[in-house]
Amino acid sequence: MSIITLTTDFGLADGYVGTMKGVILGIEPTATIVDISHDIAPQDVREGAYTLYAAYPYFPQGTIHVVVVDPGVGSERRAIALRTAQATFVAPDNGVLSYVVAVERVEQIVHLTNPSYHLSPVSCTFHGRDIFAPAAAHLARGIRLAELGQPLTEIITFPLPRPQLRPDGTIVGQVIHVDRFGNLITSITATDLADHSGSKIARRGLPNPRLWPGSGDPGRAKLDLADTPLLRDGIVEVKGQSIQGIANNYAEVTPGKLLALIGSEDHLEISVSGGSASQTLAARVGDEVLLKVKGHERRR
Amino acid sequence: MSIITLTTDFGLADGYVGTMKGVILGIEPTATIVDISHDIAPQDVREGAYTLYAAYPYFPQGTIHVVVVDPGVGSERRAIALRTAQATFVAPDNGVLSYVVAVERVEQIVHLTNPSYHLSPVSCTFHGRDIFAPAAAHLARGIRLAELGQPLTEIITFPLPRPQLRPDGTIVGQVIHVDRFGNLITSITATDLADHSGSKIARRGLPNPRLWPGSGDPGRAKLDLADTPLLRDGIVEVKGQSIQGIANNYAEVTPGKLLALIGSEDHLEISVSGGSASQTLAARVGDEVLLKVKGHERRR
Amino acid sequence: MSIITLTTDFGLADGYVGTMKGVILGIEPTATIVDISHDIAPQDVREGAYTLYAAYPYFPQGTIHVVVVDPGVGSERRAIALRTAQATFVAPDNGVLSYVVAVERVEQIVHLTNPSYHLSPVSCTFHGRDIFAPAAAHLARGIRLAELGQPLTEIITFPLPRPQLRPDGTIVGQVIHVDRFGNLITSITATDLADHSGSKIARRGLPNPRLWPGSGDPGRAKLDLADTPLLRDGIVEVKGQSIQGIANNYAEVTPGKLLALIGSEDHLEISVSGGSASQTLAARVGDEVLLKVKGHERRR
Repeated sequence: MSIITLTTDFGLADGYVGTMKGVILGIEPTATIVDISHDIAPQDVREGAYTLYAAYPYFPQGTIHVVVVDPGVGSERRAIALRTAQATFVAPDNGVLSYVVAVERVEQIVHLTNPSYHLSPVSCTFHGRDIFAPAAAHLARGIRLAELGQPLTEIITFPLPRPQLRPDGTIVGQVIHVDRFGNLITSITATDLADHSGSKIARRGLPNPRLWPGSGDPGRAKLDLADTPLLRDGIVEVKGQSIQGIANNYAEVTPGKLLALIGSEDHLEISVSGGSASQTLAARVGDEVLLKVKGHERRR
Repeated sequence: MSIITLTTDFGLADGYVGTMKGVILGIEPTATIVDISHDIAPQDVREGAYTLYAAYPYFPQGTIHVVVVDPGVGSERRAIALRTAQATFVAPDNGVLSYVVAVERVEQIVHLTNPSYHLSPVSCTFHGRDIFAPAAAHLARGIRLAELGQPLTEIITFPLPRPQLRPDGTIVGQVIHVDRFGNLITSITATDLADHSGSKIARRGLPNPRLWPGSGDPGRAKLDLADTPLLRDGIVEVKGQSIQGIANNYAEVTPGKLLALIGSEDHLEISVSGGSASQTLAARVGDEVLLKVKGHERRR
Repeated sequence: MSIITLTTDFGLADGYVGTMKGVILGIEPTATIVDISHDIAPQDVREGAYTLYAAYPYFPQGTIHVVVVDPGVGSERRAIALRTAQATFVAPDNGVLSYVVAVERVEQIVHLTNPSYHLSPVSCTFHGRDIFAPAAAHLARGIRLAELGQPLTEIITFPLPRPQLRPDGTIVGQVIHVDRFGNLITSITATDLADHSGSKIARRGLPNPRLWPGSGDPGRAKLDLADTPLLRDGIVEVKGQSIQGIANNYAEVTPGKLLALIGSEDHLEISVSGGSASQTLAARVGDEVLLKVKGHERRR
């Protein structure tokens, strides 16, 4: 019984997602289908890439993740499937797997060229239904990846927004996602902070997080703020506002106040307790976020 | 094969809900996961409490209901699991189970303190993923409730909005929920009406409603308006408008007209036939609703 | 293990859909439940009818489709179940199956009058929960259709918006659906175009599309534009704008430009590459769409 996840910009009003599920169940009736999101902004490949990146590590090993944010549908852009030790990804080759390949070792890539595993006819506008859903379902029923098409050795990626370090020790990042609560997720990770401050680090763990009592978890380590005293002296600047220190949770400051914390995906996040940082700051994806660490020079 | 339901304020755009499902399926691959709602207004504990209350009686006995509307995530607020004869509820201890405990006899409560049944590390901001989803999944695979943490004897509840009876016989209630169609669900139940008018009553049935032909249904009885003549003389007042009598269905009045009826959860409901009462009246949660029963004094 | 799909105007905020799923799983725990859409505009029977029509052919044969867009709930309108070779449909008798019965041969219809297969009591306002969900679940567990109520020989339908042919050869259609991307789906099908131009036709296939390698597909044939040279000379007019020719995909024209193409359900569709035709043209359902075929008279 395989798990297939779906991440699209189709919305839920039109029945496009339901149609994909019908196709999957027609090919592999025992598949467990899980929605990650269908409210990716239309044709926003970067938002799709981030949303997948935040969710996929929490699915069991071997899960098949289908991502259809596909402004180039029907053009010459390739349809691909890509396997890592953790999961298989089925998507257009347009950068939507950029985060995944930045943090996972890729084992195999194929170009989905074998028409035996497409619906027939293939429409020009709905490859989610005609190519991606069938590919995932055939993988779920045990077809080998290599059967689906020609091997590839590389895919298209976009440059990830990596934070920069200025000579004065300031870390310069940007807002990479705004969530439903108005939280601003930034490009600055716990790892960046920990590396910078010389403390123990919280690495983004690619292996699946520990789900069973007693199993090991080599990949993810909690950021222990007790080990990173500099962070408590850090100042986060965004949209002309300054935030002193990194909080442990939303409830730590008085309602309505801005705070910075390490969010659930180990990225530096800017929030308003009981409110929306996005609204309060009129902030959006791409806005610059500075982290100034007081006393940084002294430590070096 | 256990059923796990999810009720959150996470929305469906960010992948948070999908992430919770990934965690659940990693622990208990055969769980059947059902969404009740993820569009609870952000951090609106009362709306979450009402939505759960309206839906959970219709699930099979033994269903595990996870509710994550959790403004206090990461603070000292407790994470709990609570069992009744009907179901098990997994939620923050912030009042979101207030309706449930008002209508169900509680059999057991635990504080979810056993770290063996948490993801590791536990983030400060996403206990839905790190504590609540794992707890539900472990229960679904047969772990006893007592294993999950320390026993508790009470939980936090908020006062339920109960209707009041004025000396002149007027029942004073309020709008407790506005649904997608703009229907105003009020705090006045069929039971309140029936008690008041001395007729046979329609009790809110806690036992699961009758799903199988021939099985008994001791808990729910249909409100028979033939037995409650007073209701047909009742006048509902809301936002300065008067509605004469209680209708049987939306189609009973001409389109665009206000009507009052006993809704599907046995609460007095104010609607506009073919329209939105919420828009027509500019009404919202908390607005006062009066029910004046003509001739009430004569009957006493 | 049966598949039950749900198409409603309930939205996802209120828990109504979750409640229906609870009822279904209480009756048939092994049902696989798939959402087609719950964001049909409130009480918009035509939108519900179109959305079902676009999705249902992609589900496996024998799927049970529940459709609840039901402005007449609680009135004398009938609740029905209808079987074709492809699927069984459970819905109010209000026209929501108009597209289905236009393209499928109906084998059996029943009026859902048998109270043994209703929840008890039946509310006046939520037959999705009390009548339609139980009917679908009982069918999924093997109850014969005839058990559910009295046989019927006809149902209510609304006239489908069929394109008209003017003496000068212009095809006159209308917008029948606007999707999430702002694409305008029109009443003009590939079949209409092909019939008109005398070329090989792309019939709307009622049988399930080909899902398995090697299986036949008698019902659907791809529109081959090479066979329809007239189309390349066609001019589509909508809201005062003219579009020259029929494109193969969104990426074929420069971003921001209008294009016309044959969409994924084989209807003529008007789009903006990388944008929203609905916004660009301020167009909506019902707007007239003309297709003028240059040189039409010469061919006759």
